Amino acid sequence: MNKLFALLLTTGLSAPVMLYAQQEAIDTAMVNRIREEGLNHSQIPVIAHHLTDEAGPRLTNSPGFHRAATYVVQALQGWGLSGAQAEPWGEFGYGWSAEKTSLSMRTPYYSPLIAYATPWSGSTHGPVSASVYLVEKMDSAWITSHLAEMKGKILVIQPQDTTLPANFKPDATRYTDSALAAIGDTYMFTKEMLKMYLPYILKNMMLGKMLSASGAVAILHASAHRDGTVLAQTMSGWRVKDQPAAPDLQVAREDLLRLMRLVHGGVPVTLELQSDTKLYGQHLQGSNVVGEIPGTDPTLKSEVVMLGGHLDSWTAGTGATDNGAGCIVALEAMRILKTLGIQPKRTIRIALWDGEEEGLYGSFHYIRNHFGDPADMKLKPEQSRISAYYNLDNGSGKIRGIFAQGNEQAAAIFKQWFVPFHDLGAATVTLRNTGSTDHLSFDAIGIPGFQFIQDQLDYETRTHHTNEDNYDHLQMDDLRQAATILASFVYFTAMRPQMMPRKPLPKPEKFIFDDIFP
Amino acid sequence: MNKLFALLLTTGLSAPVMLYAQQEAIDTAMVNRIREEGLNHSQIPVIAHHLTDEAGPRLTNSPGFHRAATYVVQALQGWGLSGAQAEPWGEFGYGWSAEKTSLSMRTPYYSPLIAYATPWSGSTHGPVSASVYLVEKMDSAWITSHLAEMKGKILVIQPQDTTLPANFKPDATRYTDSALAAIGDTYMFTKEMLKMYLPYILKNMMLGKMLSASGAVAILHASAHRDGTVLAQTMSGWRVKDQPAAPDLQVAREDLLRLMRLVHGGVPVTLELQSDTKLYGQHLQGSNVVGEIPGTDPTLKSEVVMLGGHLDSWTAGTGATDNGAGCIVALEAMRILKTLGIQPKRTIRIALWDGEEEGLYGSFHYIRNHFGDPADMKLKPEQSRISAYYNLDNGSGKIRGIFAQGNEQAAAIFKQWFVPFHDLGAATVTLRNTGSTDHLSFDAIGIPGFQFIQDQLDYETRTHHTNEDNYDHLQMDDLRQAATILASFVYFTAMRPQMMPRKPLPKPEKFIFDDIFP
Repeated sequence: MNKLFALLLTTGLSAPVMLYAQQEAIDTAMVNRIREEGLNHSQIPVIAHHLTDEAGPRLTNSPGFHRAATYVVQALQGWGLSGAQAEPWGEFGYGWSAEKTSLSMRTPYYSPLIAYATPWSGSTHGPVSASVYLVEKMDSAWITSHLAEMKGKILVIQPQDTTLPANFKPDATRYTDSALAAIGDTYMFTKEMLKMYLPYILKNMMLGKMLSASGAVAILHASAHRDGTVLAQTMSGWRVKDQPAAPDLQVAREDLLRLMRLVHGGVPVTLELQSDTKLYGQHLQGSNVVGEIPGTDPTLKSEVVMLGGHLDSWTAGTGATDNGAGCIVALEAMRILKTLGIQPKRTIRIALWDGEEEGLYGSFHYIRNHFGDPADMKLKPEQSRISAYYNLDNGSGKIRGIFAQGNEQAAAIFKQWFVPFHDLGAATVTLRNTGSTDHLSFDAIGIPGFQFIQDQLDYETRTHHTNEDNYDHLQMDDLRQAATILASFVYFTAMRPQMMPRKPLPKPEKFIFDDIFP
Repeated sequence: MNKLFALLLTTGLSAPVMLYAQQEAIDTAMVNRIREEGLNHSQIPVIAHHLTDEAGPRLTNSPGFHRAATYVVQALQGWGLSGAQAEPWGEFGYGWSAEKTSLSMRTPYYSPLIAYATPWSGSTHGPVSASVYLVEKMDSAWITSHLAEMKGKILVIQPQDTTLPANFKPDATRYTDSALAAIGDTYMFTKEMLKMYLPYILKNMMLGKMLSASGAVAILHASAHRDGTVLAQTMSGWRVKDQPAAPDLQVAREDLLRLMRLVHGGVPVTLELQSDTKLYGQHLQGSNVVGEIPGTDPTLKSEVVMLGGHLDSWTAGTGATDNGAGCIVALEAMRILKTLGIQPKRTIRIALWDGEEEGLYGSFHYIRNHFGDPADMKLKPEQSRISAYYNLDNGSGKIRGIFAQGNEQAAAIFKQWFVPFHDLGAATVTLRNTGSTDHLSFDAIGIPGFQFIQDQLDYETRTHHTNEDNYDHLQMDDLRQAATILASFVYFTAMRPQMMPRKPLPKPEKFIFDDIFP
């Protein structure tokens, strides 16, 4: 899930869902078959192993992404889907991978430190040793007046908060009924918030460039999180104009704070660092991965139900929960439906997106290529034939409901569709919005795009964009439940007489991407 | 805190504490002065920084231990204590340190892995690359039949439990009133338990030796714990006859499970490993660190009140909570009392122990050198002059009460002594026993030895023997409270008319150490 770039209009209504829609016909026999296949004959662990352990980190346009895309195409073909392929969407930028990462304290005594190279950061080209220089203030005046001292040093950025209060909250949680009833907008990042944060972000990028240009050997940041869990993400680096970049690493918070305290105590600290990294510039184009179960109704087969998640990830882990989980669930939903030999009226299309973490690039360019540009709202014919898009990108937690994104008629339908899954804990339909992921691209072009409500588990505390985003943090029972419900919703959408009801077309508005950053 | 070797007799009574003891005189003015100094003029963070960040890991007989011991002697001298010195207690064995630790997956793709060298493990003498061989069963027949395949490989020991359920419990907790009221024996490891576990431990040591002798390059274990927290400890290695040993590392659980799954999936895995380690054999003698505030009463000054914790630690962290915390609190208690210029009737002696983690060696040999051997109970004169020993070794949590270890008369006294500290959350006196640390050595020779009840915080979940046992996981307010109460208890003990009441002398019984292991 991407946090920063979810900027689209939010037209959430807080009114309760009105059940004025007509009665939905539920095919109970098919629901039972989907449940049997999804809950008792799941292939989730196998798919998960291929997408995480075997593919490795799936950074956009990088070798791990390509390994995963190859696996997905082969899996879809193996299940008998049509048109399984990587579909280029336009220019993204460099791929990147860590080739060797090792950080140790050498003086005053030896200690290995936990560190991960920041994606798209530069290479040390082999091992280097240097003393630590503590950047006490991320402030242009302070940096300018100390710049001469930084040359040849490893810079340690002192975090603003240097304490670590005891953690009395559980890492993993599930929604209580009352929390579900009171659920509000989540993960929204509005234009107003951007206006507030952008100067801060731009200032930090500018300060980062000053430090990079100081002649320092490398820059070390204290990761958010604790206990050996390390967050590693970035807001730039992939564009050709962002390179070359300095070596830059995210260090386990406690490890970095020790370096800071030693320097404060007057103890000289030297480090041994190897951060070999590699850029991939041979093809700068990004690709989404798509595949279909063709519709069978002569009239309706040109209409399409879509489902997906984003295939790209960050690099410290293997992107198991962000957003391996969404891809695994969407793939398993397709496998279930194909295995059951369904004959959907409408075409069902899976799309696993590229470049989500850097700005919803893959899904946005997909809608621009296929449906039209939100900036002018000149719609292409295909826009009118997409019934709905279902997304899952809040980690490994089971489905507890769905965000109807202000679409009251869709909400009334979803209420009925959840009835066969109340026993699995899924019932809540809210008109509220959730942001920061790929359904927003559809919403922006007037196509109903939805994201499910999922139990949080340890997504925010441990896995989101961290080294712990790995297979072990997937909860297989939760994913089985999610795939079962997703397959059913997709089937219902493919079979109902009408397309899903739409909200009024949004006003033309630019979808903001990398042009916000210099 | 040591878990395995706490083998002494446990004579715990579960009867409620009877208040038949005489009224204790509480010097309220002195309590207020101690509280003011301990709570509002604390030096805890400074002491903690020196013992953890600056000294580094304090493995028995290793450079970090010696750095810490030097600091402690200087600090005690600086505060004006008498006789501050390292006091040799007998032969321990080798010191050891990690000199370079770096582990990465190289095939099927590059990934850095979190790993810590097991204390006293052998050296790779520089970087090595080798393919992974998965040891699927820790079973002598299985190992024998696969031994030939292990040569030149890096062995990955498959753990018995390969799942990682979501963690819905908080890492840190405090005692509730009802939990305190119901507190039972804690950390006890009885002779009966040893009898049960010893065959299992010996079998694993034997299997470990088989693997070491296989010609494998190194042995990798899945750490207990999760999320980047890595436990690293051992039961052997320091004795001259234990060496040479194979390179052996504790790997973050999720990192190791990925290697295991890749091998299970038929993917060849190669690793790049450097685990340079160093043995220190110049002096095999261990030392405790002691210092005193001499008593001033002509009659009572030959009597002694003792307090302490163990100075040694494991090596993946800096031993902040195990047992930096106990040492810091004991040191701060001495500083408080010296700063206040108290004139105690009895002598107050701090002793920071060595070799606790390997078997309570430092404290046991101290009591054997000074007071007598529990094996024959032939007492030396000094035994009769130690009023009590107070220990703190359950992490960084504040004091909530004390284990009276079956000493009913002492319990009645402690009840009264806690009255001025009820507002700080400390009141519980239980006759129950706690084990696994150095007060047991005193109890074994008939000297009242006590350990406080402390809030657990994240001791069991994150810091105990792990890479996260660092300064940041110390809760300074808790330690301030503990030092204030410890200083007061020590003062009360030094000033009361009589020595602390004793339990009947235990029957002669051998204190079991390394002679249990071949």
